[in-house]
Amino acid sequence: MQRTIDWVDDQIHLIDQTRLPDELVILRVAALDPLIDAIARLAVRGAPALGVAGGLGVALLARLHPGDEAAVRDGAARLRAARPTAVNLAWGVDRALARLSDGPDAVLAEALAIRDEDIAACAAMATRGADLVEGLVARRPIRVMTICNTGALAAVERGTALGVVGELFARGILEEALPLETRPLLQGSRLTAWELTQMGAPFRLLVDGAAASVLARGLADVVLIGADRVTANGDTANKVGSFALALAARHAGVPFLVVAPESSVDLATPDGAAIHIEERGSDEVLAFRGIRSAPEGTRTLNPAFDVTPASLITAIVTDHRVVRTDRGETPG
Amino acid sequence: MQRTIDWVDDQIHLIDQTRLPDELVILRVAALDPLIDAIARLAVRGAPALGVAGGLGVALLARLHPGDEAAVRDGAARLRAARPTAVNLAWGVDRALARLSDGPDAVLAEALAIRDEDIAACAAMATRGADLVEGLVARRPIRVMTICNTGALAAVERGTALGVVGELFARGILEEALPLETRPLLQGSRLTAWELTQMGAPFRLLVDGAAASVLARGLADVVLIGADRVTANGDTANKVGSFALALAARHAGVPFLVVAPESSVDLATPDGAAIHIEERGSDEVLAFRGIRSAPEGTRTLNPAFDVTPASLITAIVTDHRVVRTDRGETPG
Repeated sequence: MQRTIDWVDDQIHLIDQTRLPDELVILRVAALDPLIDAIARLAVRGAPALGVAGGLGVALLARLHPGDEAAVRDGAARLRAARPTAVNLAWGVDRALARLSDGPDAVLAEALAIRDEDIAACAAMATRGADLVEGLVARRPIRVMTICNTGALAAVERGTALGVVGELFARGILEEALPLETRPLLQGSRLTAWELTQMGAPFRLLVDGAAASVLARGLADVVLIGADRVTANGDTANKVGSFALALAARHAGVPFLVVAPESSVDLATPDGAAIHIEERGSDEVLAFRGIRSAPEGTRTLNPAFDVTPASLITAIVTDHRVVRTDRGETPG
Repeated sequence: MQRTIDWVDDQIHLIDQTRLPDELVILRVAALDPLIDAIARLAVRGAPALGVAGGLGVALLARLHPGDEAAVRDGAARLRAARPTAVNLAWGVDRALARLSDGPDAVLAEALAIRDEDIAACAAMATRGADLVEGLVARRPIRVMTICNTGALAAVERGTALGVVGELFARGILEEALPLETRPLLQGSRLTAWELTQMGAPFRLLVDGAAASVLARGLADVVLIGADRVTANGDTANKVGSFALALAARHAGVPFLVVAPESSVDLATPDGAAIHIEERGSDEVLAFRGIRSAPEGTRTLNPAFDVTPASLITAIVTDHRVVRTDRGETPG
């Protein structure tokens, strides 16, 4: 299967996720600017994939500027700033950059290690997350609500929250997935629905505003989300709409699980109040896949993320552990 | 100003709301089938406007079939069923139909009375609602969040919840409106943003999933919604997403007000559990104006409405009264 992001023939190859579900286009990136552009316009997105993109980006820089450490560090700083909320991007950049004095091959080896560790981490999260869901939910088969795209397209293979859905499907106990379309960029419609279709897993798509009442009507057994950043106390930054979903899950008495690699856990940030929320441009809200829906001149308020307080989260599943926030445990 | 729906030259004239904000198209309806079609595809929508449509539709039938009571009643039954959740449509049909034995002119007079009473009711709701908001909110100027379209386009003139926003603007105490785009049909982007632009009122549009966190960040002082049906205990059926907004308002400690004409209050329905929730087709979720966003074959779960329990509502404002649900009052 095509990996979401990989290193092939001295280039970064990545699936252009802005073209899905209509066509599968592979971008071949051989310079910094197209990589920054791909990250900024969300052709590659998802915390784990961004970590790999950060590492491979530095590897690319190190090969393009051998012996010119200043050029590599300057490019790395620009790459790091392409998405301010995503801790994994900076993490991947910094990790590869730490090997710079050992030469371009060492930097590349580190970036490839990030890739391989992500593949292993997603496998671990899928198993641990599915085990936890099996323990928390009595009903069989299980109905899972999820937001945004947290599947293979958010990582290298399998993904985080959607990786758990895939594992439940593989175990034969998934009744259906209920992905939210996830406005404004429709990652749920375009990407998660595409991945679930590829898997052959049963699902029904819903608009974000319908999630709360669907939960209140008892139509889902568990909510699974990914994370862009998990803070020391368990507060979690994720795609806008996640917090609303957590409130609704709490109201409905449904477990709310965060599935994210340990690299998304940022112990240096004490809680959600310290997280900068990225405000994105108006076009995303005013148009729907290029078709304008609002009048000319309309202003918007378009936060890309929100912060779900740990008090609304049942547990955080990483590749190393399960943090039972509902029992007062914290990641830090 | 062009009324949303009116009786002109023995025809029903109505703004085709599916064409906004791109163009202002007036439909001239002289037969039942095009009226049912207009209601079903939401060219005319909003509880009060549907009441007027119901009344004028029966007036049209009475003129088309003079002396043929069976034909009028048969047509009226079909009209009544065009939108099952909207109590106002049935109410308008039944009220005009009650004058059938007095002849077509009496039926028309009753339908025009519904129209004129709606204009007066909206004026009364605007005043009473704005007075209540002034009393509940200490901050000046005031920031108001709202969902769907509840303005002039939902009525004949002014509207319900958005009529209150317009009144706050006229009083010079509106800092900004924060309309939600309201997927799947984008009534907020297409219609409310258009009306606010026409008014010259300041506003910023946001996606539905952002509402909860925007409220939690303290960026709105009050939430105003309309209603498709208010039951005897105060439970309120409204556009899907309203319940999520009520949960978020409660979490943020922000007043949550329902603004609806007395004709939307259905004392025959004891509570929200008795409301049938209309499930609409997949195309609304899968595509917008012909542009598909999800893969072929994707199934959906597309409830058009949700029910907000009275316990999450601060007050219900009608043209006759304010019901303080937060003090244990009920409409019935």
